[in-house]
Amino acid sequence: MNTPPAIILFGHGARDPQWAEPMLRLKAMLEQRQPGLIVELAFLELMAPTLPDCVSQLLERGCTAVKVVPVFFGKGAHLKKDFPALLAELRQQHPRLNIAATDAVGQWDAVWRAIADEILSQGQ
Amino acid sequence: MNTPPAIILFGHGARDPQWAEPMLRLKAMLEQRQPGLIVELAFLELMAPTLPDCVSQLLERGCTAVKVVPVFFGKGAHLKKDFPALLAELRQQHPRLNIAATDAVGQWDAVWRAIADEILSQGQ
Repeated sequence: MNTPPAIILFGHGARDPQWAEPMLRLKAMLEQRQPGLIVELAFLELMAPTLPDCVSQLLERGCTAVKVVPVFFGKGAHLKKDFPALLAELRQQHPRLNIAATDAVGQWDAVWRAIADEILSQGQ
Repeated sequence: MNTPPAIILFGHGARDPQWAEPMLRLKAMLEQRQPGLIVELAFLELMAPTLPDCVSQLLERGCTAVKVVPVFFGKGAHLKKDFPALLAELRQQHPRLNIAATDAVGQWDAVWRAIADEILSQGQ
């Protein structure tokens, strides 16, 4: 029973459904690269499911551990206040669920290196 | 006089100044990798300078061409409506400035591959 934690890609959300498409591509990419890995999307606002709803659904599916990946570029109030508050609430509500969180993807140098590569390779 | 266009990294903006730090790191990365390249930041809201202000400052510095890189993950109203409107306005105001724009960085597969790599390498 040493299954990897389910991954929750946690984004801001937007009114336009197309906004979430890159996150859906990331989900597909992860599922393809690690077959069997559970990957779900959750949103802070404007889109469903919310993070608490996503966690409830994963619990119903029998997940015992989740890892939340904030798909945000910058660290503003959403990541400094809203996200920690959500995590604290979830941990209180589900004391037996192992809830981990990574840093925001915008803190990962490799992401910015990929962006820089692309900008410089698109020619000047 | 075949200088490369100045790069404008165009982000959403936020109330917390720390939010822009990763974009500043990207600017430094680009400047280091291509010495002499002009790279500036501009924001849609909540942070200065705005895109029009940034373009005015670059014109004052003698730039004749700019390339705007939208540092957004998803394509919602900001990129479908606000950004094209801003570009159209800038092109009308500065007919002699060559204004190009790339796709949003969230449309670049390499960016999501870098994110997927990082998620999978952080161990399960």
